[in-house]
Amino acid sequence: MKTAIVGASGYSGEELVRLLLRHPQAELAAVTSRQYAGQTVARVFPKFGHEPRAQTLRFSEPQPEWLAKMADVVFLALPHGVAAEFAVPLLDLGCQVIDLSADFRLKSPALYKEYYGHDHPAPELLPKAVYGLPEIYRAEIKNASLIASPGCYPTSILLPLLPLLKARLVKSTGIIADALSGVTGAGRKVELEYLFAECNESARPYGIPKHRHLSEIEEQLSVAAAESVVIQFSPHLIPLNRGILATLYLTPEKQFENEQQMAALREQIAQCYQAAYGQEPFVRLLDGPALPDTKNVVGANVIEIAWRLDPRTGRLIVLSALDNITKGASGQAVQSMNILRGFPETAGLG
Amino acid sequence: MKTAIVGASGYSGEELVRLLLRHPQAELAAVTSRQYAGQTVARVFPKFGHEPRAQTLRFSEPQPEWLAKMADVVFLALPHGVAAEFAVPLLDLGCQVIDLSADFRLKSPALYKEYYGHDHPAPELLPKAVYGLPEIYRAEIKNASLIASPGCYPTSILLPLLPLLKARLVKSTGIIADALSGVTGAGRKVELEYLFAECNESARPYGIPKHRHLSEIEEQLSVAAAESVVIQFSPHLIPLNRGILATLYLTPEKQFENEQQMAALREQIAQCYQAAYGQEPFVRLLDGPALPDTKNVVGANVIEIAWRLDPRTGRLIVLSALDNITKGASGQAVQSMNILRGFPETAGLG
Amino acid sequence: MKTAIVGASGYSGEELVRLLLRHPQAELAAVTSRQYAGQTVARVFPKFGHEPRAQTLRFSEPQPEWLAKMADVVFLALPHGVAAEFAVPLLDLGCQVIDLSADFRLKSPALYKEYYGHDHPAPELLPKAVYGLPEIYRAEIKNASLIASPGCYPTSILLPLLPLLKARLVKSTGIIADALSGVTGAGRKVELEYLFAECNESARPYGIPKHRHLSEIEEQLSVAAAESVVIQFSPHLIPLNRGILATLYLTPEKQFENEQQMAALREQIAQCYQAAYGQEPFVRLLDGPALPDTKNVVGANVIEIAWRLDPRTGRLIVLSALDNITKGASGQAVQSMNILRGFPETAGLG
Amino acid sequence: MKTAIVGASGYSGEELVRLLLRHPQAELAAVTSRQYAGQTVARVFPKFGHEPRAQTLRFSEPQPEWLAKMADVVFLALPHGVAAEFAVPLLDLGCQVIDLSADFRLKSPALYKEYYGHDHPAPELLPKAVYGLPEIYRAEIKNASLIASPGCYPTSILLPLLPLLKARLVKSTGIIADALSGVTGAGRKVELEYLFAECNESARPYGIPKHRHLSEIEEQLSVAAAESVVIQFSPHLIPLNRGILATLYLTPEKQFENEQQMAALREQIAQCYQAAYGQEPFVRLLDGPALPDTKNVVGANVIEIAWRLDPRTGRLIVLSALDNITKGASGQAVQSMNILRGFPETAGLG
Repeated sequence: MKTAIVGASGYSGEELVRLLLRHPQAELAAVTSRQYAGQTVARVFPKFGHEPRAQTLRFSEPQPEWLAKMADVVFLALPHGVAAEFAVPLLDLGCQVIDLSADFRLKSPALYKEYYGHDHPAPELLPKAVYGLPEIYRAEIKNASLIASPGCYPTSILLPLLPLLKARLVKSTGIIADALSGVTGAGRKVELEYLFAECNESARPYGIPKHRHLSEIEEQLSVAAAESVVIQFSPHLIPLNRGILATLYLTPEKQFENEQQMAALREQIAQCYQAAYGQEPFVRLLDGPALPDTKNVVGANVIEIAWRLDPRTGRLIVLSALDNITKGASGQAVQSMNILRGFPETAGLG
Repeated sequence: MKTAIVGASGYSGEELVRLLLRHPQAELAAVTSRQYAGQTVARVFPKFGHEPRAQTLRFSEPQPEWLAKMADVVFLALPHGVAAEFAVPLLDLGCQVIDLSADFRLKSPALYKEYYGHDHPAPELLPKAVYGLPEIYRAEIKNASLIASPGCYPTSILLPLLPLLKARLVKSTGIIADALSGVTGAGRKVELEYLFAECNESARPYGIPKHRHLSEIEEQLSVAAAESVVIQFSPHLIPLNRGILATLYLTPEKQFENEQQMAALREQIAQCYQAAYGQEPFVRLLDGPALPDTKNVVGANVIEIAWRLDPRTGRLIVLSALDNITKGASGQAVQSMNILRGFPETAGLG
Repeated sequence: MKTAIVGASGYSGEELVRLLLRHPQAELAAVTSRQYAGQTVARVFPKFGHEPRAQTLRFSEPQPEWLAKMADVVFLALPHGVAAEFAVPLLDLGCQVIDLSADFRLKSPALYKEYYGHDHPAPELLPKAVYGLPEIYRAEIKNASLIASPGCYPTSILLPLLPLLKARLVKSTGIIADALSGVTGAGRKVELEYLFAECNESARPYGIPKHRHLSEIEEQLSVAAAESVVIQFSPHLIPLNRGILATLYLTPEKQFENEQQMAALREQIAQCYQAAYGQEPFVRLLDGPALPDTKNVVGANVIEIAWRLDPRTGRLIVLSALDNITKGASGQAVQSMNILRGFPETAGLG
Repeated sequence: MKTAIVGASGYSGEELVRLLLRHPQAELAAVTSRQYAGQTVARVFPKFGHEPRAQTLRFSEPQPEWLAKMADVVFLALPHGVAAEFAVPLLDLGCQVIDLSADFRLKSPALYKEYYGHDHPAPELLPKAVYGLPEIYRAEIKNASLIASPGCYPTSILLPLLPLLKARLVKSTGIIADALSGVTGAGRKVELEYLFAECNESARPYGIPKHRHLSEIEEQLSVAAAESVVIQFSPHLIPLNRGILATLYLTPEKQFENEQQMAALREQIAQCYQAAYGQEPFVRLLDGPALPDTKNVVGANVIEIAWRLDPRTGRLIVLSALDNITKGASGQAVQSMNILRGFPETAGLG
């Protein structure tokens, strides 16, 4: 089985290269980058220099026809808006497409326009696209031709939240997601605000109160809750290379006013998570005193989840950590590819 | 006017040394540290090596009688529980005491016991102690003999919140304070979890849901709201040397359901902050698109505050940034000293 | 084939756990730690929590007899001096031992005493021990029962230097090795100087001019040069988690006073490295404008090497980068195990 | 006395703003930046937001005539090549000019062309320009109209080296300077290689073996040695915001083959440094076991110097640390201004 990566020079593209170079069943047949066309992967990313394949594989200009000849599955690691331009012809040419941009994550073209500021470039594809969160949409991914791989913030919020909402253990109102992201979350953008000395020793909020990722988060939450869900989402940039830490503030449907009620609720939540993720290879449910820590998920296709009930405030606090370019982007995309192609889901991700 | 620092070898002690060495009206007459007794300040803290005073001033063993002879104002930069042992004799000996520990921050001995796990060592002093938040208790500080200088998290939460609560612009219920702290916030503790490689590339929550600082935060909020206030407080450790970034989630008393109501509320909040802090030398109210950033307050005795109304959720989000060992500890303590001794409030803090 | 790790709670022990958990031919049968005895690997190192083996494997007290029953190959990741206490009985009990400490790296007991300050605890084993630098001692490793795995600084200096010395392309006098190390290089020592806020935003030399690692570096260089070699070695601590960057200043045997001589020498050096390492899976010889960068070797069992002739000074400058706990410690130890046991040398290290 | 800064939006410009805003005798009358023209200093640099002057002072377009009206002393914080365009008219208009670029640091136009690749734009000014290293050229600075403030690497190398060379304590041949720099050393350049995730967890050499700064370093060393000096200089980029750490490898003129000779040489070196810098307010000669550390000089106009004799190799190793944008750039420039204008040399730099 052959794969290609379109736009392989950014951070999620680079991570796809890393994962596919060592994948036991997928061959990395093509990588594209206008900027690096003609150069080997080993030259552009010295860290892969000891992989024989990286020494021979060269970046190409992105051409759909050629890509369709080279690969069965094509990953799009492109900026929002550009991805759709490739998805359309690649699908027509019979490829399976896994898109890491936001282009196909929403079902509603109107929502897309509200958050991205222009009409959707290929609204006819939106109904076809499957939201590539394997723990939630495994069955749909299996038969998809177009997978919209979720963003890093959405993954860190949706995976902890969806089972609770579906089980109606928490209210769908008043939800707050406070999240911290490492700097690769911004992509490999050459902008002043992402220079080392602007980020090191800096912690700062941004995109408050209406960040673009809200659109896909709320759309997915609304599906799970079977009603329209509006949440508060506050992203912050902190000096990590990789990692997202999300803190979710939730209100249980049932109040817990004494120890007994609290114990009962605790049991329900534990069972809910166990039922949802107890068998999932990439969800790490923490117990005991452990809390999520980004350093424990770096480079792994894993999300850590822990939670606490607070009897003083009546709230449920759920915490999650993941690597924004592995489980939050490229690892998850490879996980979807594994499902799509019938490989063991953990292949190449161990 | 002569000053002394008891416990000058930790991070807030070191910062007091820095500030007092260059203070135009206060002389640093004594510093104590059991560990470094006999050594010069210049030897223990090479960064002060070019200050003539640091070359001659030596660390001493901490002895109240001697300290009382050496200094008019004594700063206590000691662990919780130990500070009280020095405050009692120093006050008896006629010193003015500025305590940076939590020992005298609470009015209620019961609350102290609940959060610190043992009886208060000197409950008779609690009524005398003034909570050293100059922007709120300036008049009381002026006449105090014992100042309990606030903690770093409390300062980052109380200064943005108190004016809104007092003006009844926000509800006193449902308040959430999500906060990020640099590693010096933990003090100079030689523990595994604060090693470089355990903190670098790590973002992690801790002390959830009942951190000790809640006690002083809620006591102060309750005074302002004239009713008992319970909040949610979630601290996180991130890889900064210095800095706290707090994100507060608040519910305005009045809903804002259209543009007009929102504009009116915006105006009220702006006026509230302007009235409270417009003339304050150490509160930086951000306007326009600017949001707080810890890198803009490092080493300065300044808190940055910004806020946003979210029409989608009906919430008010307030953000603050400060340096946990300057405005969050030692700078604020020097600010209190300036008030206490009738110096210009900004003396030595410019 | 079964393996055990004695002292698995430090950074190189943790890295051994990571590598052995995913090794295709070696089973991790036992891990010891006095501090963590009884706890699972998943509890102590949450990052391995998604590995089934980590959920069941528990830390034990270190007992040689039990270890010899559990494992064929035992890795010692212990402090200097302690390792020998385990090596002696384990060898007697028939285990193969790979020691990551400095205890068996020197051939000379006198040199050991000079640098470590006490008599060698088991001098009779020194002649048996093989210095575990696979690219140099592959044949000896194959038949060893006791492998002394090299230190991180020595690896970063010896691999670039030995081929040049053996080929007599550079003088054995006047050699300078200036090296930078990330903080894990100091081990997981809970000491003030390795706290986050003491290392972050700090670059500092230490151990100048006579660092302990000089003993094994010079002993190995002397073997290669067939004469006694004395070098200058200056280590520096910089704020990285992992990584060593070494800059070596060398004098070519032949002067190069014109372009032609320089081109000839360049060719000789290139051929020397190509002959030595052209087929080595873990040595990355950089060409073109590329220079070593620690970020390109993190987590990989790889050393990057580049070099430059300077016609202005007549010197050859060689630069290397490696991960101090992978190629500089645990990865290299696993590489030795692979050789020892006849596995593909890259097994578990890809 | 009024000052202006041309090109105040880079890191050294920002540091000049910081220093001049609090200078007791100099007023910051004008700042220019094409990019930020029209905006207040407080808006562009929120960290100065609490300084009243920063709230009113606005960035202007850079126009020599206007600058000459506004200011007595003009600082040029511009890229190499651009500075000369401003220096010429400003000098004609009677300003004193302190240039932080490399444009006037060399006496030889030929050397300039060799290293900068084009003819010097104003060679007639080179004889007039004084190299602004106050500890060496204090007398010349006093009467200068054009001061070429040294670069950060040159300062870190020249200050430790010049007294030894002048006193003929070390040979002028075979000198090696190995140096580490924080990322602000590259300026506020928006380039891929300076992004946070490209620098964090990275240590890498660059500009080897012929970095531009060699030209001014060698020219100054040659003056001191009264002969042509060629050195080896190897810069490395490490993940610090601010700071340079230089390690110099030197050969004493006299060999020291026994304890007595070593003690005598040690005494001579100590006296040499004491004579050169014992009274200097900004040179910190470390004694005892202390070694330079960048964290001890951050934000201070100070250079730390320590040294070690190595009896094993016969070398003298000298180590220095400074803040590349304070003593390595803007602090030093203000120090020169203080000398030029007859202010206390430490004014505004305490």
